[in-house]
Amino acid sequence: MSMPIYNFSAGPAVLPDSVLRQAQSEMFDYNGTGFSVMTMSHRSDVFMSIMYHAEQDLRQLMNIPNNYKVLFMQGGASSQFNMAVMNLANGFKRVDSVVTGNWSRIAHNQMGKLSDAKIHLAAHGGELYDYTDLPDPESWDISPDSAFVHYVINETVHGLQYRDVPKPFANQMPPLVCDMSSEILSRPINVSDFGLIYAGAQKNIGPSGATIVIIREDLLERCSDRIPDVWNYKSHVERQGMYNTPATYPIYISGLVFRWLQSQGGVSAVQTINALKARKLYEAIDGSGGFYTNKVAARARSQMNVIFHAPTPELDKLFAQESTTRGLRLLKGYKTMGGMRASIYNAMPLQGVEALIEFMGEFQKRYG
Amino acid sequence: MSMPIYNFSAGPAVLPDSVLRQAQSEMFDYNGTGFSVMTMSHRSDVFMSIMYHAEQDLRQLMNIPNNYKVLFMQGGASSQFNMAVMNLANGFKRVDSVVTGNWSRIAHNQMGKLSDAKIHLAAHGGELYDYTDLPDPESWDISPDSAFVHYVINETVHGLQYRDVPKPFANQMPPLVCDMSSEILSRPINVSDFGLIYAGAQKNIGPSGATIVIIREDLLERCSDRIPDVWNYKSHVERQGMYNTPATYPIYISGLVFRWLQSQGGVSAVQTINALKARKLYEAIDGSGGFYTNKVAARARSQMNVIFHAPTPELDKLFAQESTTRGLRLLKGYKTMGGMRASIYNAMPLQGVEALIEFMGEFQKRYG
Repeated sequence: MSMPIYNFSAGPAVLPDSVLRQAQSEMFDYNGTGFSVMTMSHRSDVFMSIMYHAEQDLRQLMNIPNNYKVLFMQGGASSQFNMAVMNLANGFKRVDSVVTGNWSRIAHNQMGKLSDAKIHLAAHGGELYDYTDLPDPESWDISPDSAFVHYVINETVHGLQYRDVPKPFANQMPPLVCDMSSEILSRPINVSDFGLIYAGAQKNIGPSGATIVIIREDLLERCSDRIPDVWNYKSHVERQGMYNTPATYPIYISGLVFRWLQSQGGVSAVQTINALKARKLYEAIDGSGGFYTNKVAARARSQMNVIFHAPTPELDKLFAQESTTRGLRLLKGYKTMGGMRASIYNAMPLQGVEALIEFMGEFQKRYG
Repeated sequence: MSMPIYNFSAGPAVLPDSVLRQAQSEMFDYNGTGFSVMTMSHRSDVFMSIMYHAEQDLRQLMNIPNNYKVLFMQGGASSQFNMAVMNLANGFKRVDSVVTGNWSRIAHNQMGKLSDAKIHLAAHGGELYDYTDLPDPESWDISPDSAFVHYVINETVHGLQYRDVPKPFANQMPPLVCDMSSEILSRPINVSDFGLIYAGAQKNIGPSGATIVIIREDLLERCSDRIPDVWNYKSHVERQGMYNTPATYPIYISGLVFRWLQSQGGVSAVQTINALKARKLYEAIDGSGGFYTNKVAARARSQMNVIFHAPTPELDKLFAQESTTRGLRLLKGYKTMGGMRASIYNAMPLQGVEALIEFMGEFQKRYG
């Protein structure tokens, strides 16, 4: 038997084998239609049904209330924070923006470009903690009159994750707009706590090209007709997600992932495994007597992206090389961070994490 | 042997069998990497190489000059006409827009939303010809001072296609911005005639989710820093198409289609077959003694999307039904047009068109 390969890519990321197997077997004939999903009109009954069921399965998995609309869009998270400002800040003077790492910093710097509203820095985890901890939501400088509060719940580059949903002023808080790309479906969340949730599919769901949007329907009233339809949430909702041709194959694959999640027992069940995977890995780091290090405060450590460093940049490099030959792939850290990053999304099996921990021990024995 | 199935979908559309076969065989292991292309980081060497070769192959097929940049973006044609205005009309008072069918009409109505420039109607094929012919480019009311001229070279809904590239004022014409979604790579075109070419991949290339952009590099100087990076051509060029995660799998499939086109002898070779397919089909319509009709003027008939009607709406419906049972799929016309539409893109084999013509004859014998 060949060596198992474990893919720790931060995204596009690992997909369940069973999903790839089904995609492979249906490549020429989806469900007796004689067609590949890739060659079907998006308006065909068959594809409309695929998209409908993907939405229903996502609703079931996340327990999405009826007053939320679900869209499968394109353009990734980078389109969404711009669209959020364009659609939801209309007539408002201020948007509150929380910077906690690489992605929220990019969003903060981009959001003001097409907006009349001021993008107000509500908190800055870089200035406060050099991105090794997260600003307490109670400390966020937010205004009840803001259009919304933007934040990123899990920062893939810095390995930070908010445990709880911020509720500083309870009911007086403006709607939360949250980038969930790298943690969607990894644990139960209460959708009603948010105004808008968006997520590029390429991290915790799988294929790139599909972008999930979950929006509370009263917010659609803010979407002005002056916004081009292709970037207008209301236009997409009114056309049931068919304003333009969606990324059909990535949506189909996402739907297969949703079914796989259901077969695993749903989000609560995978949360248990995700928590175990993360706990074991952080224990291996913390128990290495200082050989491996992760500086993130315990309360803010990501369960999805675990970053760690060996004692020197040379050993980091060697770790990345040697682990690759052992079937542990794409562990090299983000370019600005150095070290290693293990992305352990839903589709990463516990065995992959155990194999990584075993290799970490051997590596330390050799070079420690 | 089972009945062959021919897919006449207007898009997402037919893909060559050999492309689907390769995708199927590489689903778990691309080129010995042990990974599916779907699960690779977009920044991995392997995927970067896939994208690089896709670009090089497209450059070779279209003979794209060095002073043009190629991008694989997201969001389809509907994003591109908005981005064209956002990026290229900066500081201009006017954009010229030619309306020749469904898609250019949508573009015309959308382009003004985020633009200070006036979107000037340069010609209207609906008012002139009820979309059964194309306004002669010499008659377009365009100004040398306009930011650009927008037009759609092939209209999938109305079955219209410009044969030649408009050059009304020769060198004084503003840059042409052209939607080539439904004809890209179907025949040789001279890229230098255009300022910006864009194309959703889901018609004449195949998978939805990837959008091809070919832009003359001097036009990048017009792209203001005030445009959000995700919708800014210059930002994407500066980051070599990796500003954000591209739709990796649709790009990979597009690359396979480019290789397939090369194996067919390139664009000139497929043009010969495309012309033959279209000629045979129009001859079958015109030679049916009035049973089948297509009202489009000969000079404007599309070689990609052939529309036709049977004598009555009831027979149209019957044709669509009966043809489906004969393996001729998705021939039903666009909702506003009725009748039939046969999309005969590059990947539709001549045999598919011959099978359709044979069925048309039988159908006419039965009901004519």
